[in-house]
Amino acid sequence: MDKINLAEKFARIDEYWSPRIVADVQTMQVKLARIKGEFVWHHHEYEDELFFVVRGRLLIQVQEDSQPRDIWLDEGELLVIPRGVEHRPVAEDEVWIMLLEPQGTLNTGNVRDAHTIDEPERL
Amino acid sequence: MDKINLAEKFARIDEYWSPRIVADVQTMQVKLARIKGEFVWHHHEYEDELFFVVRGRLLIQVQEDSQPRDIWLDEGELLVIPRGVEHRPVAEDEVWIMLLEPQGTLNTGNVRDAHTIDEPERL
Repeated sequence: MDKINLAEKFARIDEYWSPRIVADVQTMQVKLARIKGEFVWHHHEYEDELFFVVRGRLLIQVQEDSQPRDIWLDEGELLVIPRGVEHRPVAEDEVWIMLLEPQGTLNTGNVRDAHTIDEPERL
Repeated sequence: MDKINLAEKFARIDEYWSPRIVADVQTMQVKLARIKGEFVWHHHEYEDELFFVVRGRLLIQVQEDSQPRDIWLDEGELLVIPRGVEHRPVAEDEVWIMLLEPQGTLNTGNVRDAHTIDEPERL
């Protein structure tokens, strides 16, 4: 039972788009990621995904009723992407995010590309 | 699918120790609470509970191997209290916390007292 200091954890992440597991709560996991640039459009078939912005400003693009929609998140803001919703995070400048999602959630969801990380490390 | 601004939500909470539900992720809920003073010792039989400090400094007292232990959390720090672990949050000055726990988790766990809130409001 050890506390987790987000800043200390983020300082140990040395690459973008590589979520690190920092805690387990029931069957969910808390992950941290440093991100920069455009991610791939994808969705998660069965998993809701919470994005919380710790540092920076994040754009999450979503498809809603087949229409693209931009949702901007500032520090201290969060958004839940429900399962099935097509989305893509975009970070013009570096952003630090905390994610909450079920164990085993693949970062690229239904897509496989260079961003796909099958086994996220623990920090 | 609307983003949640923590500061805006906290500003609408007008009492201590009254968690408000702000988001659902799978079968878990994100709750916000403003707290001050000592809470009641309790545990949750089946639920893990994540505490994240948004503002202020929080003491969480836990019983570990029948020994009391103080865990101090500053802003940007989190702690998961596993199910079954006796604990008590203490906030000398006001603290803002974000909680993550299963739907239906009772704030006072196995105890009923003046702090017990059976049906947390949504914000």
